[in-house]
Amino acid sequence: MALKSKLCLLVVLLSVVALNVAFAKEDPELKQCKHQCRQQQGFDDKQKQNCERDCEEYLKQKEEIERQKEKEREEHERGGGGEGWEFYTRNESQEGEGEDQQQRQEEEDEEEENPYVFEEEHFDTWVGTREGRVEVLPKFTKRSNLLRGIENYRVGFLEANPNTFVSPSHFDADIVLFVVQGKATVTIMKKEKKESHNLKRGYILKVPAGHPFYLTSTDENENLFIVKLFRPIFLSGHYEAFYGPGGQDPESFYTAFSWDLLEAAFKTDRNRLKRLFRQQKLGSIMKVSKEQVQGLSKRGEGGSGIWPFGSESGSFNLFRKRPSKANKYGHLHEVDSKDYEELQNLNLMISYANITRGAMTAPLYNSRATKIAFVIDGEGCFEMACPHLSSGSSSEQYGHGQGSRSSMQKQKKSKRYQRVSGRLTRGVVFIVPAGHPYSLVASPSNNLEVVCFEVDSEGNIKYPLAGDENFVKQMDGIAKELAFNVPNKEVDRIFGNQEHNFFLPGPTQQKQGGRAYA
Amino acid sequence: MALKSKLCLLVVLLSVVALNVAFAKEDPELKQCKHQCRQQQGFDDKQKQNCERDCEEYLKQKEEIERQKEKEREEHERGGGGEGWEFYTRNESQEGEGEDQQQRQEEEDEEEENPYVFEEEHFDTWVGTREGRVEVLPKFTKRSNLLRGIENYRVGFLEANPNTFVSPSHFDADIVLFVVQGKATVTIMKKEKKESHNLKRGYILKVPAGHPFYLTSTDENENLFIVKLFRPIFLSGHYEAFYGPGGQDPESFYTAFSWDLLEAAFKTDRNRLKRLFRQQKLGSIMKVSKEQVQGLSKRGEGGSGIWPFGSESGSFNLFRKRPSKANKYGHLHEVDSKDYEELQNLNLMISYANITRGAMTAPLYNSRATKIAFVIDGEGCFEMACPHLSSGSSSEQYGHGQGSRSSMQKQKKSKRYQRVSGRLTRGVVFIVPAGHPYSLVASPSNNLEVVCFEVDSEGNIKYPLAGDENFVKQMDGIAKELAFNVPNKEVDRIFGNQEHNFFLPGPTQQKQGGRAYA
Amino acid sequence: MALKSKLCLLVVLLSVVALNVAFAKEDPELKQCKHQCRQQQGFDDKQKQNCERDCEEYLKQKEEIERQKEKEREEHERGGGGEGWEFYTRNESQEGEGEDQQQRQEEEDEEEENPYVFEEEHFDTWVGTREGRVEVLPKFTKRSNLLRGIENYRVGFLEANPNTFVSPSHFDADIVLFVVQGKATVTIMKKEKKESHNLKRGYILKVPAGHPFYLTSTDENENLFIVKLFRPIFLSGHYEAFYGPGGQDPESFYTAFSWDLLEAAFKTDRNRLKRLFRQQKLGSIMKVSKEQVQGLSKRGEGGSGIWPFGSESGSFNLFRKRPSKANKYGHLHEVDSKDYEELQNLNLMISYANITRGAMTAPLYNSRATKIAFVIDGEGCFEMACPHLSSGSSSEQYGHGQGSRSSMQKQKKSKRYQRVSGRLTRGVVFIVPAGHPYSLVASPSNNLEVVCFEVDSEGNIKYPLAGDENFVKQMDGIAKELAFNVPNKEVDRIFGNQEHNFFLPGPTQQKQGGRAYA
Repeated sequence: MALKSKLCLLVVLLSVVALNVAFAKEDPELKQCKHQCRQQQGFDDKQKQNCERDCEEYLKQKEEIERQKEKEREEHERGGGGEGWEFYTRNESQEGEGEDQQQRQEEEDEEEENPYVFEEEHFDTWVGTREGRVEVLPKFTKRSNLLRGIENYRVGFLEANPNTFVSPSHFDADIVLFVVQGKATVTIMKKEKKESHNLKRGYILKVPAGHPFYLTSTDENENLFIVKLFRPIFLSGHYEAFYGPGGQDPESFYTAFSWDLLEAAFKTDRNRLKRLFRQQKLGSIMKVSKEQVQGLSKRGEGGSGIWPFGSESGSFNLFRKRPSKANKYGHLHEVDSKDYEELQNLNLMISYANITRGAMTAPLYNSRATKIAFVIDGEGCFEMACPHLSSGSSSEQYGHGQGSRSSMQKQKKSKRYQRVSGRLTRGVVFIVPAGHPYSLVASPSNNLEVVCFEVDSEGNIKYPLAGDENFVKQMDGIAKELAFNVPNKEVDRIFGNQEHNFFLPGPTQQKQGGRAYA
Repeated sequence: MALKSKLCLLVVLLSVVALNVAFAKEDPELKQCKHQCRQQQGFDDKQKQNCERDCEEYLKQKEEIERQKEKEREEHERGGGGEGWEFYTRNESQEGEGEDQQQRQEEEDEEEENPYVFEEEHFDTWVGTREGRVEVLPKFTKRSNLLRGIENYRVGFLEANPNTFVSPSHFDADIVLFVVQGKATVTIMKKEKKESHNLKRGYILKVPAGHPFYLTSTDENENLFIVKLFRPIFLSGHYEAFYGPGGQDPESFYTAFSWDLLEAAFKTDRNRLKRLFRQQKLGSIMKVSKEQVQGLSKRGEGGSGIWPFGSESGSFNLFRKRPSKANKYGHLHEVDSKDYEELQNLNLMISYANITRGAMTAPLYNSRATKIAFVIDGEGCFEMACPHLSSGSSSEQYGHGQGSRSSMQKQKKSKRYQRVSGRLTRGVVFIVPAGHPYSLVASPSNNLEVVCFEVDSEGNIKYPLAGDENFVKQMDGIAKELAFNVPNKEVDRIFGNQEHNFFLPGPTQQKQGGRAYA
Repeated sequence: MALKSKLCLLVVLLSVVALNVAFAKEDPELKQCKHQCRQQQGFDDKQKQNCERDCEEYLKQKEEIERQKEKEREEHERGGGGEGWEFYTRNESQEGEGEDQQQRQEEEDEEEENPYVFEEEHFDTWVGTREGRVEVLPKFTKRSNLLRGIENYRVGFLEANPNTFVSPSHFDADIVLFVVQGKATVTIMKKEKKESHNLKRGYILKVPAGHPFYLTSTDENENLFIVKLFRPIFLSGHYEAFYGPGGQDPESFYTAFSWDLLEAAFKTDRNRLKRLFRQQKLGSIMKVSKEQVQGLSKRGEGGSGIWPFGSESGSFNLFRKRPSKANKYGHLHEVDSKDYEELQNLNLMISYANITRGAMTAPLYNSRATKIAFVIDGEGCFEMACPHLSSGSSSEQYGHGQGSRSSMQKQKKSKRYQRVSGRLTRGVVFIVPAGHPYSLVASPSNNLEVVCFEVDSEGNIKYPLAGDENFVKQMDGIAKELAFNVPNKEVDRIFGNQEHNFFLPGPTQQKQGGRAYA
């Protein structure tokens, strides 16, 4: 019943439509959609026609989805919500390739839903007060066994109002923070001193497992928004927060000890201790005064480095580093343990991509790293080729023991790659496993900004599959001819036509003079 | 039905009582208990009253437990045994905090039993002869999934009579030995030579996986007692012993081969081989003569280092190293790979704590390491704050998909920490996962001695939560005030009151002049 | 009902018989078998008698197996096939040791089948065209949990006709190739250049995960046969092939992207792209002309090293290295990361053993490494002592909680080692876990050649259990006497009798003068 793999361009177009048109089952939306097609300046006539046909297809599909959803609502108690999701996962049969359609249809029935894209409803709320919240995705393997390669990572975010304080705690996980918005002072208690870090957009900070730390949102106007990667150290994929100072919510871990023990430990009467450990009723994110913020963000005592005076040790500003790829279609910043030593034991690279509106990344893949990507701003879509979801992929499905020794013709199936796609907006998380080709497209109206945690990044190479540096260009002429079974010249023409590299003009982007593709 | 979290002081007091008073359902025990309370010299009047009330509470609870146990005996076939355990795991409601009681009671029904403490009945007997035994705890994940972080470790012990010999064998596990009592000569067959090590109390020796070794208990009077940590190398958490020389019990692995093959391998007739490989019927731990012991413990041939002449390579005497913490309340010795190179690849620290009778360790936690502790002597108790057992802890219990995009108020629960506790006597094993605050208390009558294997110890920091070096003292004044929501002065007073560090006077320990706590 | 542990010699003898005699239930086969016994020149009278008795036993057993198989055929749909297997796994009771027989029989009922040996029917066909095939064993844990120590490895082979081309692809797995037969040119696309390697028998090549590569079978007459070890990098034990150039079978992963996206990426019209990505209908292994082979195997452009001119970087010829063990009974070549740097991160050694016909390896074990062995030529058999399959081995079967504190006599069972055995012919894979004693025997008529991937090889030591360098010889005299419970002289006589080392004359091999064993 799962509906899959959406035409990416259409997603982008219709997401624009969606902003303008109230939800309707008929004409008005179709009309707008077609209008949008005709107005796309980069389109030639045929593309416009395709686009309009896609609009019709889309609406038929949408109606069907609506019917289906109503049916599902009756079956399941919780029903609602997922509309946005289904929209982006419907069948690619709309591409009108009749010969493939039926076969694909049959396969779909066996396939499970796309587990590579996470939207807001997938997050759990760990902390939620008037002043802020912490939301974390469940263990990836809760979603799908296909994600067990990143089972021992968790991803989440903190959002806190201006002038707020986040209570001290420690975690049984290493944490990497990336500041997306706002300003923060983070204070970490190390072995025998404390270290304070003033952070703003683009700063990366690692908080090692078990180190108590607290945090102040120091901007007066802007919310603080921090993306977090957790690597639990004891239970794979499972971690806990431990609050020392606490009260009702969160509770202090001190109160789990017996009062006799605590009396002795603190040389203090139990009543006094109870008053101390139960007084905090504001939750772990609380409003603070301007003066308190100043006190908390002032220069650290005793030389603990405070930005901008000597923060070099401890945190790293991603934007201080030159982009590793940059042209007018986008830029990419990459930080690894050579830049920020603290990443060493995590085998982690952090990257930030800003894709210009209307542009795209060349289809590419990572040779070793798996990407956990968090969309921090803008709008766009994502396509990935995935062999695991395809019904023909799994060797486990092959028959066993049916062959005799002499037979070389055992049952086998050819590879088929399933398109996985998703609409990207702020807060969406998507996963790209090692080896999987993927591409990102920014909407025509907004730059798309993504921060990525690339785990197992040691020795990783990014292989572009199109654009000026694609690897097919380097292949032997004979190999190209054999591999594609067309004349070498034709392979070269196609793989050599795109003069840009890594960041490319996207499908909806205006080309010079409105010419069609070669 | 699980009963949890015992008042630690009471455990210690009553364990003394238990030695003096035969089990009785009424007055005599209560009388003794109250008498004990009144005699505690460190107690002020209020503490004495609390103590007496606790006695009453305890006996009520105990009767209830008895009733329950009888009921259980009828249900389960094996019934008996666990009395000591239930005693130390009953409800903390005895602390008389009515407001919390009911709520906790409800939660308990959902919780599983404390999986962090192991007593004698949890061990399996691997070897058991007239002359000695080897007992090993089952794979930790057999007990609980909460221990999967140490799934690939096993812990056990060897006890052997004086003047005994333990047969040669090899294991598919790395083994670390810690000698608690007696004297031993261990001979390891390395690539092309053998190495002999004379060991006594405090010696640590690593036997690498696959290396054949044999062992002699060389003291004439004292039993040999060795604590062992195993790290299996092929099957996580599962290992086997391979006996070459053997007979009926253990069998020799040679006899698994066909006699044809063995005849060729040894160029020897099968009847002669059978006589060789079946002659040993004494089991793997056997009595030997004084002369044989001398022969086995004499200086090794060809320069293999024998203590005390050059044993530096190979084994390490923990007591040669200065204690890292020491005061009149206890001392702590720590050995890691910087001291004993052989621990390098195991990422392991071995520590030994001797807590003076009546004293305690400050509540503290390890930032990265997980502690597998083995009580080697004395008496005491253990308390730990655990978020995993608490019903409010697990993010997995949060609802999914109930939130809409705009809603920030998804279901969430505050952290609650469950007390895990246990009575400590020789042979008890307890686990403290990374990040979990815990404390040990020695009984008023005996020092408590514990040897700990701290796995994943690289980069570990011990964070004391009370005592002179607790980390709260280092926090910013404003942060303390915000975190606890009480005036800074009050936080400082409480966190600054305890002048001792790491090892502290315990709950029952006499204070100067019998004054109550501040 | 499982039948186990075969007399190895008999296997070898009868495998010769099997070539000459059509299958028959009675006399002719028995006659031939006995004849063969009498003709064995190395046998004395008693051995000949034993051999003839074994022939009778064997045929009785075989008839029983036949009856059983027919019964099973009725129960199971697929019935046939496994004859060869059951033949080599029948009960050792034929060894006529009445005293053990009954006990063993009882244990067998609880035991699972030998999961350490894989034959052709266990392989899955990943690629199968007119011109070649790729066959891979399923994830080892699909077969048995006892193999979870090598869960993250896969093993397979490629066989390709002369003058064929294997399409470019990349894998989400590190791959190590060992060329058994034929000649190949492998071209790997690295970051910014391509590297070509001309390979022939004995060459080892690592293809790092994610690197696109293609391959040509360049010999005009001989098939190419390559053994492959895969180490998946994202999903443990599961990997996929990604074909860029492709068509119907395999499909190109490009076609999983939407045509809009591809048009933009390639700046090329979709019709043209469709022609390119669907033109290849020949499958991934295809015939090529002599000229094309020459083009593909010619010296690489721009200095990419091509054998024999400078292939030192990248590939390694195992036969260039001196054998680490060699005598007239066999030789052993071993390659690790000190020889071939590329193996560094894989913690892998590759070895090649050639055992002279009629000879054997001394029983031995690896202290840390686990061996994944692939028989590349010849005929022989394999015996291994395995404690995991034995009913007495598993500590998990011990009772829990039945002991009281004072009791030292808890339930326990002695170790028993089960013989695991298998007949070895080209294409058979067998596994030897760390610590497990094993031995290989070559048939009297053919050398046995085996290539082994030894995983977790760092710090591994091979411990011979018989032969001139066995470790028992080094033990203290007293220890030997105690361990075997026979006079030291007798131990020395037996363990000192075999003057050869590592490779030994085998059970059927002629000894000087036909004398019986001492």
